[in-house]
Amino acid sequence: MEIKIRKQVLEKNLTEADKNRSYFKKHNLFVLNMMSSPGSGKTETLCRTLKSLMPDIRVGVIVGDICTTNDADRLAVTGAKVTQINTDQFGGDCHLAAPLIDTAARKLGCEDLDLLIVENIGNLVCPAEFDIGEDARAVVLSVTEGEDKPLKYPLMFQVSDAAILNKVDLLPYLDFDDSLAVDNMKKVHPGMPVFAMSAKTGEGLDPWLDWLRQKVKEKQGNHSGVVKSENPS
Amino acid sequence: MEIKIRKQVLEKNLTEADKNRSYFKKHNLFVLNMMSSPGSGKTETLCRTLKSLMPDIRVGVIVGDICTTNDADRLAVTGAKVTQINTDQFGGDCHLAAPLIDTAARKLGCEDLDLLIVENIGNLVCPAEFDIGEDARAVVLSVTEGEDKPLKYPLMFQVSDAAILNKVDLLPYLDFDDSLAVDNMKKVHPGMPVFAMSAKTGEGLDPWLDWLRQKVKEKQGNHSGVVKSENPS
Repeated sequence: MEIKIRKQVLEKNLTEADKNRSYFKKHNLFVLNMMSSPGSGKTETLCRTLKSLMPDIRVGVIVGDICTTNDADRLAVTGAKVTQINTDQFGGDCHLAAPLIDTAARKLGCEDLDLLIVENIGNLVCPAEFDIGEDARAVVLSVTEGEDKPLKYPLMFQVSDAAILNKVDLLPYLDFDDSLAVDNMKKVHPGMPVFAMSAKTGEGLDPWLDWLRQKVKEKQGNHSGVVKSENPS
Repeated sequence: MEIKIRKQVLEKNLTEADKNRSYFKKHNLFVLNMMSSPGSGKTETLCRTLKSLMPDIRVGVIVGDICTTNDADRLAVTGAKVTQINTDQFGGDCHLAAPLIDTAARKLGCEDLDLLIVENIGNLVCPAEFDIGEDARAVVLSVTEGEDKPLKYPLMFQVSDAAILNKVDLLPYLDFDDSLAVDNMKKVHPGMPVFAMSAKTGEGLDPWLDWLRQKVKEKQGNHSGVVKSENPS
């Protein structure tokens, strides 16, 4: 029974996600859905990313949490447009569904943005199942979480277009085999780019930024022929 | 609509959980539901716990994962009876529901056990909503996850009877305020005992073991008048 209900919920969500996709396309906006376990460093990664990309790329962020506006507050100091979704008003949802993104995106205002990043609820399971109309998905795995997570939570890594292996500054203090972690990611998703970095120190950030810049450029090139990120007005 | 469906699913689960409770009571068994984010160190904590409690306390473990038997394999070497639930056969469920526990407990065989520990799916959200017929719940938070997690995922800490603050051996290398983390836990759940420890080094394990021994003793005292844990046959 549960599986049947879930199928219905996911189908309904997909219809709403398609509406979001049309809305984002209209605004020439590249949308990235960032997902991870709680405490993997999504917000710290985003702080670094926003500081590096702006103002050349105009970034907005939708932050999902069950409670608190902590992450939105941290991100707002970068100068990016930020809005918060607290799912405790919607039954404490464990993921962001497409209709919530629609409301949040319209509240944020997408007319003057090149890139919209959605920081999803900290959860390595459910968010992987819910399309929000995004162009790409990135999963963040912290080196403190163990090498086997891609094998134990394969769907999250299968649906992601890129992975960040975060907190590499802690490697000297952990029994963590980073090659094995990358191998496990490639096992469940061959060809997926993996960016090893420390959002805390900034080490290894550049390849990730290049990947993201390229994605924004491709999206804008596809739709307007004008590459806003290289020719900011 | 989603909230209404969820309410129905939770009500049905509660009925099944009550059946589990009767079954566990019949066998004089103390049942602990262990929950956390992925990679907080639940399995390492359990390995240490089993080695310390057995053979005085006879422990069985039900391990929940979406995929792999990695954790069950690690726990089996302690000599405990272990069985694995892989939820990918059930739609990749993000939590363990009561009927799955019923099947696993009967497969494991509870007649010769004093303590049954359920290692839930790594997820700080959904497992908190599903009663499995347990006597107590413990949440594990790793110091690598940040101090604000109790505020961001309050339900998990509200429904837990004890918390483990794990990986304290990493504190020298992190910007983590352990007093603030404990304060945040007490804010959402006043009076909840918090055990700071390192499952890796064994530091701080004893108060946790004492708490668990006491719980098993109380359950057995309530039902049989015989304290198996202090008078192993």
